[in-house]
Amino acid sequence: MKTRSGLVDLPLAKVFTCIEQGPVLLVTTRDGRKNNVMTITWSSVLDFTGHFCIVTGSWNYSCRALLKNSECVVAIPPATMLETAVDIGMCSGADTDKFRRFGLTALKAQEVKAPLLGECLANIECRVSDYVTAHNIFVLAAVKAWINPACSDHRIAHAIGDGTFTIDGERVNLRSRMAEKIPDGV
Amino acid sequence: MKTRSGLVDLPLAKVFTCIEQGPVLLVTTRDGRKNNVMTITWSSVLDFTGHFCIVTGSWNYSCRALLKNSECVVAIPPATMLETAVDIGMCSGADTDKFRRFGLTALKAQEVKAPLLGECLANIECRVSDYVTAHNIFVLAAVKAWINPACSDHRIAHAIGDGTFTIDGERVNLRSRMAEKIPDGV
Repeated sequence: MKTRSGLVDLPLAKVFTCIEQGPVLLVTTRDGRKNNVMTITWSSVLDFTGHFCIVTGSWNYSCRALLKNSECVVAIPPATMLETAVDIGMCSGADTDKFRRFGLTALKAQEVKAPLLGECLANIECRVSDYVTAHNIFVLAAVKAWINPACSDHRIAHAIGDGTFTIDGERVNLRSRMAEKIPDGV
Repeated sequence: MKTRSGLVDLPLAKVFTCIEQGPVLLVTTRDGRKNNVMTITWSSVLDFTGHFCIVTGSWNYSCRALLKNSECVVAIPPATMLETAVDIGMCSGADTDKFRRFGLTALKAQEVKAPLLGECLANIECRVSDYVTAHNIFVLAAVKAWINPACSDHRIAHAIGDGTFTIDGERVNLRSRMAEKIPDGV
């Protein structure tokens, strides 16, 4: 794996801002010597201290690695990667080396064995802190996070669920309207 | 409350498509004879049969009504309502009649006592089916859902969490690429 030169530290207190938007996510795992990646579109912030959840069940090959190793990297692909993200979701790590097939750049993470994705806007190194079996909810705790300044496309994609997606358009700033609800340093 | 004439049935099998995008949500409750509404930006789909979750804790006035009555309406405001949605989130039902203050149209729901929001793109009548106390996760089961054809703005807003928001831009259709993963009828 290549080194992660060029990536910039993202404070854990800002991790929730990556997830709250409702982005299409790529989640990497490493089982033994094998990297894998899945596409996840069901997620939610849980608090302001880097806890969030992804929803996936035992039908998913990556789910076993998540349960076994209790760690992963959650990456935010730019909108330009949307077709690749969809294709990643259409094949299984059980019979496919997805990193090779899609030409993905695996970078060494700092705190977990799962790889960072060099093409993504942000990478969040996570440990699984709980698994709510009844609802297939993996509660993740961010332990380290990175921003990729080399990523020129800052728009993200949102899945509708019917095979269509919306791409970020206009950005609206209402900070002054809700200042007292924004955590310090965000 | 006015009748809901003009609203069109949204099949429960399509409810997940409202939530998967990661929209700013308005959640109404009714406690006794009093309607209330809160703004929620932490949510996730849980399955294809109308189960999804919102995340909010006991610090929230509406949370008590949710726990007590075990029902609510989850509404999707159009992007044109974003400033109102933010303002709704900045005051409390403890001391404010938010429906009066913001001129919201409460329509009678079919299955729950909480009101529908006449200004919203979609309204999902829900029962609380579980509350995961450790993570403040309310698991909701949609019991009836409505689309509002009179809503001309189909763009939704996504909260970043830092006081800024993105509005839906371009729509991309990748149905043919992922046809086998789209549930029947969606």
